[in-house]
Amino acid sequence: MINKLVSKIKKLKAPIVVGLDPMLKYIPEHIKLKAFRERGENLEGAAEAIWQFNKEIVDAIHDLIPAVKPQIAMYEQFGIPGMMAFDKTVKYCKSKDLVVIGDIKRGDIGSTSEAYAIGHLGKAQIGSNYCYGFDEDFVTLNPYMGSDGINPFIQVAKKENKGLFILVKTSNPSSGEFQDQLIGKCPLYELVGEKVAQWGEEHIGECGYSYVGAVVGATYPKMGKVLRKLMPKTYILVPGYGAQGGKASDLIHYFNKDGLGAIVNSSRGIIAAYKQPAYEHVGAENFAKASRMAVIDMQKDITSIF
Amino acid sequence: MINKLVSKIKKLKAPIVVGLDPMLKYIPEHIKLKAFRERGENLEGAAEAIWQFNKEIVDAIHDLIPAVKPQIAMYEQFGIPGMMAFDKTVKYCKSKDLVVIGDIKRGDIGSTSEAYAIGHLGKAQIGSNYCYGFDEDFVTLNPYMGSDGINPFIQVAKKENKGLFILVKTSNPSSGEFQDQLIGKCPLYELVGEKVAQWGEEHIGECGYSYVGAVVGATYPKMGKVLRKLMPKTYILVPGYGAQGGKASDLIHYFNKDGLGAIVNSSRGIIAAYKQPAYEHVGAENFAKASRMAVIDMQKDITSIF
Repeated sequence: MINKLVSKIKKLKAPIVVGLDPMLKYIPEHIKLKAFRERGENLEGAAEAIWQFNKEIVDAIHDLIPAVKPQIAMYEQFGIPGMMAFDKTVKYCKSKDLVVIGDIKRGDIGSTSEAYAIGHLGKAQIGSNYCYGFDEDFVTLNPYMGSDGINPFIQVAKKENKGLFILVKTSNPSSGEFQDQLIGKCPLYELVGEKVAQWGEEHIGECGYSYVGAVVGATYPKMGKVLRKLMPKTYILVPGYGAQGGKASDLIHYFNKDGLGAIVNSSRGIIAAYKQPAYEHVGAENFAKASRMAVIDMQKDITSIF
Repeated sequence: MINKLVSKIKKLKAPIVVGLDPMLKYIPEHIKLKAFRERGENLEGAAEAIWQFNKEIVDAIHDLIPAVKPQIAMYEQFGIPGMMAFDKTVKYCKSKDLVVIGDIKRGDIGSTSEAYAIGHLGKAQIGSNYCYGFDEDFVTLNPYMGSDGINPFIQVAKKENKGLFILVKTSNPSSGEFQDQLIGKCPLYELVGEKVAQWGEEHIGECGYSYVGAVVGATYPKMGKVLRKLMPKTYILVPGYGAQGGKASDLIHYFNKDGLGAIVNSSRGIIAAYKQPAYEHVGAENFAKASRMAVIDMQKDITSIF
């Protein structure tokens, strides 16, 4: 799957991924009203609204981008109907040939991590059948529990030709509380980065990159530079661009000299573009058109750094 | 909710929680065959099997224990039908007045953590209504992203009178890879433990304990002893007893002198008791009876240490 991701990034000249994190406040009133009228002001209504919102955005931008990253928390908050909207979104994006990165940040020990890996990347054996659960292409993982939490994901990803992005340095203000703590002379995030490179080194695709990737926030470019060197064959998923404060000029450090090695995420900067001064003239009715304009602008902004 | 948990622990003299982690291999053939016959050898059939298995066990043991801890990964692996079995299990356990600890190990940044908190502990505002998602009583959390990942959970837990258990030192063999790394003279898990105590200190219930708890594995009793002192008002959820190797004699370090402060989990030791030499004479047909016998034995074993 890393080969497919890299090949799509090259073809589209777009090292970008759009975060499908549909908070209700991002969704235009006309979509919400229709969904609530049809399903009620309840979990089903909220789930219908986020699904219709996602679908219209995906229809408008799928030809421009290699990948999407649905944030499962935004669906999980609406219980079972929300999870059904997540499932529908994943399937729909795959039908449009988009690479789907499930932003699930799971992580547990041994057999429990294996169950998550099966549920999100692999298939469960049920009697004499094998059945897929949510079936994303990549997932994000939390490394706090160490190798025996990560290995089951690597095994399933290998078997299914899928991939992972493991949290190394996150984009949020308090990420340093634990991640920046010095172990000897080296901060924890570097230790995790070294480990991610090790976990990935036996799993390099034809594209030259490993299907075991890393998450490093755009908001910490100096650390990004260090981590880039520490993990030369690791693809880096970079959140924090745009709304969280990360600038294109900072992103150069996350890429290798081949212009590859990083994929930059924007969520609300794209899906709620119609609320920004630059795009609000298109109107809430045309929110998906605003998202398309924002993708084009983001692609130009990111590729201007090379 | 910490008050309810402590009061139930005292009343039942049972500082124990049963992990409802229904892997298909734990489920007796007669349950699986019936479920597969009715729903097929598919996700629905698997979900039906785990639900029927859980229900029979809960019916057999609910009067003996204060709490259950469903491990969401074991449900999530079966996609939407699996999540529906999780939801049904949570609701059923609550109808039996059990405290439900959702073992979800979530953790993300800011608004994303808030969405998880709403989905699992709180209610979402949808139009003019407020709707609960999965509605557990407690959840487990991963601290890797620091305060701004944890605070939204604390806020929702406060509002809803619920609680949290934050991973400090996990029970698995490789937990030390990052958690044991020395920061100055102090391992990372102690730093996390100090932080958990700080996060919790403004949120102490009438019972004298905070509703911000910690997870510390039974497999590391020396570390448990240190952490107990470091977090005197923190309830400790202790996985790793039984099948993972933790012994009752090791558990004394996790309790305070009042005999409180810890709740010990057993999962397969209880739910798959009928497969163990000590209980296999009751037969797979009577698996729930074996679970009841195992709960009684566990309660005796744990309370023998005081």
